[in-house]
Amino acid sequence: MFAEYHGWIVESQTHADPQSGRFFMRQETLAESLPFGINKLRQQFEPLAQQFDMKYTITDSSVLKRVVILVSKQTHCLDDLLYRWRSGEMSFDLKAVISNHEDARGFVDWHRVPFHHVPMSADSQETGFRQIERIIDQTGAETLVLARFMRILPAWLCEKFPARILNIHHSFLPSFAGSNPYRQAHERGVKYVGATCHYATEKLDEGPIIEQDAFRTNHTDTVEELICAGRDIEKAVLARGLRFHLEDRVLLNSNKTVVFD
Amino acid sequence: MFAEYHGWIVESQTHADPQSGRFFMRQETLAESLPFGINKLRQQFEPLAQQFDMKYTITDSSVLKRVVILVSKQTHCLDDLLYRWRSGEMSFDLKAVISNHEDARGFVDWHRVPFHHVPMSADSQETGFRQIERIIDQTGAETLVLARFMRILPAWLCEKFPARILNIHHSFLPSFAGSNPYRQAHERGVKYVGATCHYATEKLDEGPIIEQDAFRTNHTDTVEELICAGRDIEKAVLARGLRFHLEDRVLLNSNKTVVFD
Amino acid sequence: MFAEYHGWIVESQTHADPQSGRFFMRQETLAESLPFGINKLRQQFEPLAQQFDMKYTITDSSVLKRVVILVSKQTHCLDDLLYRWRSGEMSFDLKAVISNHEDARGFVDWHRVPFHHVPMSADSQETGFRQIERIIDQTGAETLVLARFMRILPAWLCEKFPARILNIHHSFLPSFAGSNPYRQAHERGVKYVGATCHYATEKLDEGPIIEQDAFRTNHTDTVEELICAGRDIEKAVLARGLRFHLEDRVLLNSNKTVVFD
Amino acid sequence: MFAEYHGWIVESQTHADPQSGRFFMRQETLAESLPFGINKLRQQFEPLAQQFDMKYTITDSSVLKRVVILVSKQTHCLDDLLYRWRSGEMSFDLKAVISNHEDARGFVDWHRVPFHHVPMSADSQETGFRQIERIIDQTGAETLVLARFMRILPAWLCEKFPARILNIHHSFLPSFAGSNPYRQAHERGVKYVGATCHYATEKLDEGPIIEQDAFRTNHTDTVEELICAGRDIEKAVLARGLRFHLEDRVLLNSNKTVVFD
Repeated sequence: MFAEYHGWIVESQTHADPQSGRFFMRQETLAESLPFGINKLRQQFEPLAQQFDMKYTITDSSVLKRVVILVSKQTHCLDDLLYRWRSGEMSFDLKAVISNHEDARGFVDWHRVPFHHVPMSADSQETGFRQIERIIDQTGAETLVLARFMRILPAWLCEKFPARILNIHHSFLPSFAGSNPYRQAHERGVKYVGATCHYATEKLDEGPIIEQDAFRTNHTDTVEELICAGRDIEKAVLARGLRFHLEDRVLLNSNKTVVFD
Repeated sequence: MFAEYHGWIVESQTHADPQSGRFFMRQETLAESLPFGINKLRQQFEPLAQQFDMKYTITDSSVLKRVVILVSKQTHCLDDLLYRWRSGEMSFDLKAVISNHEDARGFVDWHRVPFHHVPMSADSQETGFRQIERIIDQTGAETLVLARFMRILPAWLCEKFPARILNIHHSFLPSFAGSNPYRQAHERGVKYVGATCHYATEKLDEGPIIEQDAFRTNHTDTVEELICAGRDIEKAVLARGLRFHLEDRVLLNSNKTVVFD
Repeated sequence: MFAEYHGWIVESQTHADPQSGRFFMRQETLAESLPFGINKLRQQFEPLAQQFDMKYTITDSSVLKRVVILVSKQTHCLDDLLYRWRSGEMSFDLKAVISNHEDARGFVDWHRVPFHHVPMSADSQETGFRQIERIIDQTGAETLVLARFMRILPAWLCEKFPARILNIHHSFLPSFAGSNPYRQAHERGVKYVGATCHYATEKLDEGPIIEQDAFRTNHTDTVEELICAGRDIEKAVLARGLRFHLEDRVLLNSNKTVVFD
Repeated sequence: MFAEYHGWIVESQTHADPQSGRFFMRQETLAESLPFGINKLRQQFEPLAQQFDMKYTITDSSVLKRVVILVSKQTHCLDDLLYRWRSGEMSFDLKAVISNHEDARGFVDWHRVPFHHVPMSADSQETGFRQIERIIDQTGAETLVLARFMRILPAWLCEKFPARILNIHHSFLPSFAGSNPYRQAHERGVKYVGATCHYATEKLDEGPIIEQDAFRTNHTDTVEELICAGRDIEKAVLARGLRFHLEDRVLLNSNKTVVFD
């Protein structure tokens, strides 16, 4: 169909999954190369999609995704994303930063991004998450980024944003799920330590993996040194995962991802 | 002491473990640079060791370690080690190859290395392992290499060769312990797949890790492609781990290793 | 067209090069899924190709490529390729091994592959290359692999096999072109050392790069240790490059490659 | 000597260079474990050093190094270092940031670090560098970091700070020295693109290499995408190189480095 209209296909990727028999495709077309706009495109595409029984999304890359970042005391991932956002390296509409601590306020303020402090003690979790939901709703955000947010999201919140909440876990999943992964890795004596960006689901640390990476370690590294070195890999993995998500490169295949990078 | 005798220290590494309070050291000295032989060195070193309460080993790198390799149907690791052995890239005294299958015989024969076939059906495991023990005993080998040997060693055999049985596990431990790790990895949808060289202990896949590595994968890889690509990382990780072991670079620290590479 | 016939597309990749305005595509289709054979496919495709002014090749992956390997004294790449070939990991029709030395004969013989010794002293180069050409011609080979063949191919031979001679250079090109790259790397004190698989052209070490990789090094490595460690990366890079070539994944874009891996 | 006083050696590394016959050593000792202070240590060490003809430095890791950062329009490395500095991840006394552009002022101001704008047109280079020298002299800095400072330092300035000016070059040296390395890399069609942290000397891009790294690329990356992805590797490589330098882990061996990491 694009060939018919001589559309300039910037990128096109497909994947045929022999197990599920499903076929995945992503196509990026130069808007100016088509003789009509995105609404006409949607109209023309719909019958084709029905004919081949496709599930599809057509997005306009000039419309930025609305993002809310959640963070706790560790701000390295937030700071990294703020740099990429303000420098224009990554394009998204940053609606707000929410935290259960005050640490990040100063730096977020400097960026003129709304900062919301939502205190969450052990017995105010549910209240806190309801407040977080209201803030997100007010911003109209459709993507949440858990940039080292150290609270477990309730199932109802995960379900409200399916495949739209990105979490960074500080281990090479499925190794060392749960708390204190760097301590676990140190105790096991592994030779590489990693990080995982995945979609948050109600099952903690078990959502579809978007991106991972690891760095070499050895006997000389203490837990503290792993934590420190780990920050760099967490930043890199979350940034790459988020970029894939923002550019609509991530497609779900059951509990796995197809990433057209 | 080496300084006293103007010994030329080729390599010297130390590691102080703050948790256990233990101090580890490896020193490689040019034999010709000392005014006496290895026996005299041992005599002179012993009082020093007692004074500082050291556990130590003095080895002569010109005396090759005696090695037996165990393998099943998959021969890529064996073939790789045979290349490194015959080309002189790795120095060890290869005493025998033992297998529960016949597949490797022709290639091993060509190398003029004794090949022993020990059939092991489900109910002849114990008999088989007793036979394997006898073969090893006859060769006088002190190092065993499980080069994709697909049988679980009995506890008594592991205990007979503490920190001297090297196994290659085809996953990035502790992820995907047990059987069919590539299938497990494929089902989880991880973005890196790895291999682990560790000392075999009675607890399967839980021995001290010597070396690991991983390679990038994505949604396009089938289980079969992971298995194929995995061979290269298995070969590399086992070869590096074995080299560290042969050069006495691996020291045990409880269930972890100090690798002076 | 494939969609029309309900062909099952195993893989499909495209690349639009904005600089040259050229569009590249590779499509792998299950033969059984088409209602006709490869000859009919070629007939049907030709008018389409003419209409869109395509340069194209249709190959039958069940017809193996005919390969001749050239090697000198260093046999690690040859040995590695022989393993991959005999184990079925890589599929090609190995017609012959040619060497200017005798070292590889025994191992090649064991594989029942014809081995040709072509002595090449300083003043018999041209004669030697003419003899090599005759051997290749007799085998009908269309792909040559220089697996650490330490002679510079004459321009006329390179031109006879455009984009069908794969060379492995033991440096991370364009760093350290020419002779003794590991010595050059050691003298410069680089922190990574690599290898490059490229198509041989008349300009030494300047042909289109197919694949590269590198490994970490540091001040402790001697030139000899770099040479030794480098063997592993050379083997891996050449094997990957050759696999891409054998599976028709490499397309030329001037002096660069598009690799649909 | 440390053993004599039961000093707790945190780290100890040595390197014997067979080519130059030089012996390198770095030892990190816990101050509290010695029965005297650093001045007494220096006194006691001097005769030992003379006896063995050592060149040595004894530094107190609690005294921070004084650093001045130079930057042009690209601020990613500066921003990254500022994060590491303000979060306490890297410890140094940041005296000032100097730039030939105004871009970085706001962000530097927010950190309450003195910012100096030194305009440098084509014919005001020498004046500019004299002004830069004055600013550095006033701060008493002994370490300079060229965090993508796009001016070539004059020889007299390089010589004033031998092995104390760290530069980040955006290529995998010696590949693509000079200007526009990402464009050069794109034109050559390499499969990895890297960055190099080295000490600046009067010979541009030829100083001793401290640290390097590279990332995979392929035909789909445009020059702009290489520039963007390259920022991450530049940040990482400069940060690692600077950390090695700040912790006195880098020793010069002619035009190479010994890095005791």
